[in-house]
Order: sequence, then C-alpha cells, then structure tokens
Amino acid sequence: MPERLQPALDSRDGSAFLAAAEELHYADLAFFYANLEDDEDRNFITQTLSPVTFSDILADLPDSLREEAILRYQPAQQRELLNALSDDDRVDILQDVSEEVRASLLDLLSSDQEELTRTLLKYEEDTAGGRMTTSIARITVDLSVKQALEKLKVLQDSAETLSRIFIVDERERPIGFIRLRDLAFASWGTPVRDIMFDVKETILATADQEEAANMVRKYDLLALPVVDESHRLLGAITYDDAMEILEEESTEDFEKQAGIAGEQSEESYLRTRIVVHLKRRVGWLLVLGFLAIASGYVMIQFEPVLNSVFLLALFLPMVVAAGGNTGGQASTMVIRAMSLGELEAKDSWLVAWKELRLGMLQGLILGGALALTCLLLLPVFLPNSVKGVALPQFTMAVSCALTIQVSASTLIGAMLPIGARTIKLDPAVIAAPAITTIVDVTGMLIYFTTARLFLGL
Amino acid sequence: MPERLQPALDSRDGSAFLAAAEELHYADLAFFYANLEDDEDRNFITQTLSPVTFSDILADLPDSLREEAILRYQPAQQRELLNALSDDDRVDILQDVSEEVRASLLDLLSSDQEELTRTLLKYEEDTAGGRMTTSIARITVDLSVKQALEKLKVLQDSAETLSRIFIVDERERPIGFIRLRDLAFASWGTPVRDIMFDVKETILATADQEEAANMVRKYDLLALPVVDESHRLLGAITYDDAMEILEEESTEDFEKQAGIAGEQSEESYLRTRIVVHLKRRVGWLLVLGFLAIASGYVMIQFEPVLNSVFLLALFLPMVVAAGGNTGGQASTMVIRAMSLGELEAKDSWLVAWKELRLGMLQGLILGGALALTCLLLLPVFLPNSVKGVALPQFTMAVSCALTIQVSASTLIGAMLPIGARTIKLDPAVIAAPAITTIVDVTGMLIYFTTARLFLGL
Repeated sequence: MPERLQPALDSRDGSAFLAAAEELHYADLAFFYANLEDDEDRNFITQTLSPVTFSDILADLPDSLREEAILRYQPAQQRELLNALSDDDRVDILQDVSEEVRASLLDLLSSDQEELTRTLLKYEEDTAGGRMTTSIARITVDLSVKQALEKLKVLQDSAETLSRIFIVDERERPIGFIRLRDLAFASWGTPVRDIMFDVKETILATADQEEAANMVRKYDLLALPVVDESHRLLGAITYDDAMEILEEESTEDFEKQAGIAGEQSEESYLRTRIVVHLKRRVGWLLVLGFLAIASGYVMIQFEPVLNSVFLLALFLPMVVAAGGNTGGQASTMVIRAMSLGELEAKDSWLVAWKELRLGMLQGLILGGALALTCLLLLPVFLPNSVKGVALPQFTMAVSCALTIQVSASTLIGAMLPIGARTIKLDPAVIAAPAITTIVDVTGMLIYFTTARLFLGL
Repeated sequence: MPERLQPALDSRDGSAFLAAAEELHYADLAFFYANLEDDEDRNFITQTLSPVTFSDILADLPDSLREEAILRYQPAQQRELLNALSDDDRVDILQDVSEEVRASLLDLLSSDQEELTRTLLKYEEDTAGGRMTTSIARITVDLSVKQALEKLKVLQDSAETLSRIFIVDERERPIGFIRLRDLAFASWGTPVRDIMFDVKETILATADQEEAANMVRKYDLLALPVVDESHRLLGAITYDDAMEILEEESTEDFEKQAGIAGEQSEESYLRTRIVVHLKRRVGWLLVLGFLAIASGYVMIQFEPVLNSVFLLALFLPMVVAAGGNTGGQASTMVIRAMSLGELEAKDSWLVAWKELRLGMLQGLILGGALALTCLLLLPVFLPNSVKGVALPQFTMAVSCALTIQVSASTLIGAMLPIGARTIKLDPAVIAAPAITTIVDVTGMLIYFTTARLFLGL
C-alpha cells in the first residue's frame, strides 16, 4: 500500500511524499510512521506534513511514540497541532506524555480550551468521562426546526457528528435526540420537541469505559450520552471510540487468560521490545513455576505407591492434564459470559450447579473411555508392564481418579472467576495457567489417593 | 429494568405490557423474551406486540429462537414482520430457519423483495456480502446539492443511514461519499462532485466478515462500501454490524483457545443446554486425554532413571508445566497479533527469532531461580530426600532441563499458529491446551534425558 510513500521518503522528495500521503488513510500513515526505525525518516515526515495533517496521525500512534512525535515540532506548530485535535484525542495524548511536556502543551492552548482540557483530564483514562468527546451537537428543546438548523449550521464544523443531535432541557439534561435527516426534511415551523426521539440510555462519566462500550454495542448506538451526577449532559461516547475500547478490552482479556500481565502496550507485537514482552510474561511464569513444585512434593510423598505399581505413571500425566483442560474451558466460558454482562452475582449457584453436572458428565465419558482403553489395549500393547498388576482394580483406580479430577476441576475452573469477582478482582486474572497449576496439585492428590484405595497400597 | 414488564405479563394485561415495552430498548425486550421459560408467556408477547414492533426484537433474538418466534404469527402478520425488517436482518433470519419455513416466508415477499433477498442469500453467512445492508443512500455524481437533497428526501425512510451518502459513477462504482450535513448547509447550486470526499476503502462481497469489521474499526468508518468483482456498489457494512462481528469473532477465538469446539451458540451461557455445552467441550478433552498418554509412556520408559534418583519427581511437574505456560503465552500473543492483522506470512522468521530469544531469556531466568532454590533450600527443607544425591549435578540437571524446556516451548507455541495459517487452518485452532499437551511430551523427554546425562544414569 505505501508503494509510493517509501521511495518518496528514501529520496527525501517532499512533494512526492505529500502526494502519496494524500492517497492514504491516516490510520495507514500512522502505521507507516510507527514502523520506521530511523529517526531521520521520522524527522522528514514531521517536517513535510503540516501540523494539522499530522494531528490525525498522532491520535492513531501507539502511546509510547506520541511524546517524541510532538517534540519534533516547534511550539507554534505544536499549538496548531493541538488545536486540530478533537478534544478527546487531545486529552488522551496529554495523558500519555510526561508531566513537563503536558504542562508546556497546556500553556499553548487558549484559556477556554485549557479549562476544558483540564476538566477532562480529571476523569480517569479508563472511564466514560475519560474517553468521551465533548464536541457534540446539542440544542435546547424549545427550538423550532428552522432555529435548530440555524444553530447547527454554526456548529457544523466543530461537532464530531451531526448524526445524533442531543436535545437538552433547561437544566442541561439530555431528554431526546434527533437525526439531521429529521430536521433537513421537516417543515421549518415544526417544534423540535414534536419530532425528537427519547433518550433511553445514558452513562455516568465515572463509569467504566467497558460498560459504556458494551452499551453502545448492545443498543446499536451511534453515540451514548455521558452525564454527571445531576444528569447533566457532558459529552458522548461515539461508536468508533466504543470499537476501540472493545478491542482493547478483548486483547487484555486474552492476554490475562494466558498469564500475561500488565497493559497491552498498544504497539504491535513485532514493534514491542523483547524486554517489554519479557516483563509482561516472566512474572506469572515464576509464580506458577514455584507453585508447581507443590505437585512434585505430592508426588514425592507417594513414592511408595508409585514404586509398587509403576504402571500408574502411564496415566498420571493424562489425569492431571485433563483437569487443566476442562478447568480452562469452564473458566473461559464463565469469564466471557461475565465480560459480555450475561452473568450477575446472584447467578453463581446456577453456574456452579450447571458446571458440576457438566463436569460429572464429562468425567464419566472420559473415565469410561479410559476404562475401556485399560481393559482392552493395555494387555495387548504393554504386556510386560501389566504383568503382576491386578488389572480390574488398576482400571477402577485410574478411571475413577479421572472422573473425580474432571468433575472437580470443571467446578473449580467455573467458580474461581466468580470468587475473584466477589472479592472485587478482575475475573480474568484467574488465568487458565493458574487454574492448571491449582488442579495439577489436586489431580496428583486425587490420583494417588484413589490408587492407594483401590489397589490396597 | 423490566420491573413493570413482568407483572403485566403475569397478569396477562395487554395494555400495561405495551406501555412497559414502550419504555424499553428492543435489545432488552429480546433479552427478556429469550429468557422466558414458559411457552404461554411467549405466546402472550407475540399476540400483544404488533409484528412491526416485534421485528426489531426478532432481529436481536438468538438464532435458535427465531423460527419458533416467527411461527407464532399468522402468514399475513409474518408478511408485515418481514417487511419491517431491514434487508440484512431479513436475510440473516432466513438463513437461520429450516428450509421449508424459508421457502414459505420467501413466498410472502413482494417479487422485488424476494429477488433481492434471494440474491443476498447467495453470499455465505460469514462474508461481507452476507452481512451487508443494501438499504444505503446512493446518488450519482452528476447531481447538484439541490437535486441530491430531493433524491434523499425520497430515500429518507428506506435508507438505514444518511450519515454516509455514497456517490457512484455511471457504472455504479463508488467514487465518493458525502455527509448529510455537507448537503444541508451547502448552497443549492453546488455540484456534489465539488464537495464529496474520496472513497478510499471498499471491500469485496466475498471477503471474510472479520476482514470487513477490522477495516471499519481501523479506519473509524461509519459504513464500509461493499462491491462486486466489477467494483460496483452493492451495499455497506455499518458500524453496528461491525461491532457485532468483532464480538462474535473475539468470543470464538476465546473459546477455540480454550479447546472449545464449534460455533458460539448465540444463546447466553446459562440458557445454553448442558448437552450443547458438553458437545462443544468433550471432543477436545478426549483427543487431548489420549495424546497425554504419550507423556505417561515417556515416563514409563524412564522408570530406571526416576527410581535411582526419586528426588527428580519434585521438579518434574514444574518443568513440564512451565513449558505449557510459556507456550500458551507465546501462542496467545501471536494469535492475537494475527487476528488484528498485525502479522503477515513474511514475518514468520521475525517472530521465530523474537520468540527464540525471549524463550531463552525466560528459560535462563527460570533456570537460574530453580538452581538457587535447589542449592539453598533443598538441603534445609528436604534433608532426607537430598541424602545420597549429588546436589551440584542434580541442580545442573534440573535447571538446564527447565531452561531448554522453556526455550523450546516458547518457540513451539509461537510457531504452531503460524504453521496452521500456512496450511490454511485458522491459527486459533492451535488451542493453548493442544500446545500444553505437546510440550508436556517434549518436556518429559527433555527432563529425563538431561537428568540421565548430568547424573550419569
């Protein structure tokens, strides 16, 4: 895609570069800029593109590249750049730069803009207030269509979208919305009140961004009004912000469930430095590694059992691992259902009951399959190992152990995320690897205890 | 939220029910309907709500409930219901019902609508063509602003959105778009050509729905034009469809990575019957269970090694499990990067090189920690087990095994999804449990081989 961009960059041909950049979407330009290795290349780009053009690119850059990109411009250009940004992007960028740079950039803004920006900066980055845009079209409910259109004509360049025009009462509370088409094709004398739609959904500025994004998705909204405690309209979360939020949250959940800690770095996989990858992964590996020694400790305690019937080793990894697999499945289902807002706290017992039955069914199926395998295949394929082992008792022991392990692990996998939420932890921290490690230990205990019981060791 | 809905339903009070339903979003009504257990309750709802009102709810119901809901209406009402649906929802619903019902419903449509619907039904359900809406606003490039507005006034009720108005040339190819605000506030004589924006992104009707949704997200689009092979405009994927697609695909990826097979059932977790849950989970459990016997087989082969130094059992589960954890992390990072479109086939070697270095670093850190544990803690906490064991050699053996296992598993975890894509499989089928099972076997081999080497067994 950037076929003509790269040669223009290489030959430092400014006008060719501008022409090629013109053809591309800013998201592609941001990707191109972010993937450059050479500092001089980046300098050429910021010197070639006007601050206004670059503002779109800046908003799409990974967090870690934003400060150095801004600092390539002179203060006067930085002011142009900041003016060209939408208010939510401006705030987002200011949240990513160092404190000194933030202070110097805030000084460049007009006093109105500075006040607005400082107000928005007060909301946490991951709340509805932190993500909303305040450039929305709003009109009061007492207008006629003609008056509304005149009002909007003034707003048309500053508002991010005119597809949803919010209608507020005298206390600035959102009571309705209207689409531009409803105004454009209505007769001028009609009161706006008569043709507006009710606003059914709003969200508090302090609410979590994920909740806002889930509402936008669920109700197919183009813009969700954000309000303060007195229900006054502050701004809106638009569909494109919601999509961005949902993607970030999904990625975070994916990573957490694989035991990868910390924030998604916003840089692409390949661009992220090894030490950053390492930091996010090695913590859980160390913790889980040391917990896994507990499994080994259980094994050592059962040395006599294992030594009297070493054939038990054949199905030990299988029984232990089956717990990790089924526990991971159960936790994934429950975590996903929770993050889509399907499960409430009161549903815990329903989930437990469902997973317990499911776990027992799965356990019986797997246990049955294992019993058949033992009785039919063992004597054929491992005749020497079977010698001296009481096959029926051995079969009972390993298949019962498998059934118990699968039932218990399914229940554990489903209940741990619910337990985490009860104590106000993010359910996704109960990563699949953590569940695997826990049910490894219980699996060892179940396996050897059952064996000792059935084989009379 | 449905505080007033439930009592009205219970008392079979039609007008109270209608009034309460009026207050709610159709997404909430669909959720309410889907969670009813009683057939008579559902009947009351379909008898109370008009087919037109119910059409919005129908489009939001889980696939499995759609047919029985439609069949609660009489044919004449079914026609009203179908007419009220947007064309993409109508096609989506027809794809979910049985063949006989589909045929009888198609017969109810006007011949124009039937033809359009049959054309759309030809596209696979998970392609851009299968998800697009054809109710878009389109005008030709030769119009003036006044002519365009007159044209749109006619379209205003049928078009799903007027926020993006597509402009086509004489061969129906999309060459530009315009927002209603650009027309509403422009002088009437202006040619549309002068104020339109270029269309930079389009997608083929046969392309995968995920690709379309990713473009909508990446480029912050409100509607992505869908074209045929001759680049003629067929319809558009709107932002709300894109959000739905992204959620479905994320859920599918989550589930696949936990070894849960098949399509997301679209019903909520609690509503889905146990047997459906069971079917999706037990297949992988069986396959992985039997593969895990390979680990046990390796262990049996190394009986003499384990028996001469039983202390090896202490770190066996840890070394084996560390491979599963790090392999799962690596595969998650790579799969997520691929599904966000960050990695291309040519990047495979870069990924391999990155993960190999990362794996070795992680291996060295974990191995170092294990070596310290062995030398410092073992003599203190397990003095009896250490008796007769050559501690320095034992330490070298287990920590080298851990380093090798972690390095190898990281590489395996990263490369398997890439390999899957190379042979045209969905990378997400390389579920974390599959990787765990594979590296369990390699882990056993590495552990015992290293032990034999260092301990001279």
